[in-house]
Amino acid sequence: MPPKILIMGELYWAKRDAEELLSGIADVISMESQSRDELFKDFASGGRYSDIVGIYHEHLSDKRTGHPDEEFFNALPTSCKWFAHKGAGYDSVAVHSAKARGIGVSNTPGAVDEATATTGVFLLIATMRRFSWCEANLRSGGFNPKGVEESARDLSGKTVGILGMGGIGLKMVSYIQPFGCEILYHNRRPNALAPSNVRYVADLYDFLGQLDVLMVSMPLNEKTRGFVGEKEIRAMRKGSIIINTARGPVIDEEAMIQALQDGHLGSVGLDVFVKEPQVDQRLIGMPHVTLLPHVGTENQDARRKMEVVALTNLREFLLTGTGPNLVPECR
Amino acid sequence: MPPKILIMGELYWAKRDAEELLSGIADVISMESQSRDELFKDFASGGRYSDIVGIYHEHLSDKRTGHPDEEFFNALPTSCKWFAHKGAGYDSVAVHSAKARGIGVSNTPGAVDEATATTGVFLLIATMRRFSWCEANLRSGGFNPKGVEESARDLSGKTVGILGMGGIGLKMVSYIQPFGCEILYHNRRPNALAPSNVRYVADLYDFLGQLDVLMVSMPLNEKTRGFVGEKEIRAMRKGSIIINTARGPVIDEEAMIQALQDGHLGSVGLDVFVKEPQVDQRLIGMPHVTLLPHVGTENQDARRKMEVVALTNLREFLLTGTGPNLVPECR
Repeated sequence: MPPKILIMGELYWAKRDAEELLSGIADVISMESQSRDELFKDFASGGRYSDIVGIYHEHLSDKRTGHPDEEFFNALPTSCKWFAHKGAGYDSVAVHSAKARGIGVSNTPGAVDEATATTGVFLLIATMRRFSWCEANLRSGGFNPKGVEESARDLSGKTVGILGMGGIGLKMVSYIQPFGCEILYHNRRPNALAPSNVRYVADLYDFLGQLDVLMVSMPLNEKTRGFVGEKEIRAMRKGSIIINTARGPVIDEEAMIQALQDGHLGSVGLDVFVKEPQVDQRLIGMPHVTLLPHVGTENQDARRKMEVVALTNLREFLLTGTGPNLVPECR
Repeated sequence: MPPKILIMGELYWAKRDAEELLSGIADVISMESQSRDELFKDFASGGRYSDIVGIYHEHLSDKRTGHPDEEFFNALPTSCKWFAHKGAGYDSVAVHSAKARGIGVSNTPGAVDEATATTGVFLLIATMRRFSWCEANLRSGGFNPKGVEESARDLSGKTVGILGMGGIGLKMVSYIQPFGCEILYHNRRPNALAPSNVRYVADLYDFLGQLDVLMVSMPLNEKTRGFVGEKEIRAMRKGSIIINTARGPVIDEEAMIQALQDGHLGSVGLDVFVKEPQVDQRLIGMPHVTLLPHVGTENQDARRKMEVVALTNLREFLLTGTGPNLVPECR
């Protein structure tokens, strides 16, 4: 019998990929435990999952069996040496506890870069052209609202600044360059993968002052919470636009709303909010902004890619003893 | 005194450009005539505009003085030899009457290629990702509607077909290729300017059957009216998408709505409609489609580019006796 892999949660879009990737290499079993207690019994000696060597983890399974915390990792059989998390973010996984027990944790970076960057481009065009306003006006019985020509702009010749230059930022660059925008970026340090005609600006305020559009693409952590605040927003030119496809709290939402209300900001395109799924009523009342309900990665292809990357991490672990996307804390 | 140029209508965005382009070369005067009769008197011997050599024409001026028809061209002083129309389409201009009197007519092709192609890309992303549905749900008090993940797709790996490969189609190609789409096109004949990895498909039905998304970008004329009809829509795969940034009547709207209702089409993204500004209520009732009120060129940069191209045609006529955008009927 090949070694056992436990699927916690479900494979939605990559069932066939799972067969191709793991058949003959692993005995894939689905978690049937209905509670955390039951799961821990199943992990224990003599239990159903007492001889698993790896886990595929989908966060929805946490509803049944809780987060993979220290207690969880301590309950695992000693045979289990890999925890393949499906998703780029893994703040719900007790990585240090896993490492302490010699368990590798992998995530799925890159799998949703396309989906997220595409959402950024959508918000860029939507806000530059005031298209949400146009569609809302049409759908409410009118046609073309007055004032669009005055406020809408073409993309060519505009300066777009990307804040945070990782995989998503790089994709954004490749998508936006053909429109004839000048692209700048600000990051903790220059990214060697950025094209040479995309200029790194080390000083944040120098960066912000040059932009027509700021695209926020940095992870949320204690250093980035509120990173784009009142001072940063006011460093931008009057009439400029902010796009956020990262996380709501990276921007000081109150300062942003104020700047929209007093006309300092021309528009914003947001996929994320501070208190989502609640959205501030003042934003909803603004016709010239574009608001998406955190759907940056919400499509079957992106979801399938995440599942496939997580499964591939398991496959590589089984074949080689380690996986390509071991998280930094486990290295 | 330099020769006189009459501005019929207004310069909205290119007032400064007009000075740069024409100062010292032309004496630019604005039409003050309040009616067609008055204008014709102004053109006549001894009238205010009896010695003009060229005209800048903005279609909104037609509200005051009527279309530039045969009667109009016959009323012009013999000194007038150029009619610079602002706009790509010039079906309201009696070109043959102009030609018969030795008057060159120019239009402004290319000036709105970017704006229109950008609108196409917006509709492509919006429909592939079902973003209009997402935003409408958020704005009506909800957040993320159920079913988006199942119906939304990434762009990479999808086959996009461009119907009509002129300046706008070429721009679309340059914008869409970085998303990793395979691009095909159908046209009366291959366009030598199309990149070599964009495949020409001579047979319309062969073309349609290969597509995930059809992007309609052909002019409206008697040959193209209803070009995408019931038979053509049914030749597409189930679940595919149609984008129209050309003119409403190029598509049989009734057949398209039927195909949306019975699920053959997955979505449509429309900037144009058969009876605009009226939009069919059945379309408005569909959450998963994206509908824009003919704003494909509606932004100040695109409008300015049109004005600048029209003025440049006049400048070239004054300097060389002919302009770069003389319409084919006058050549």
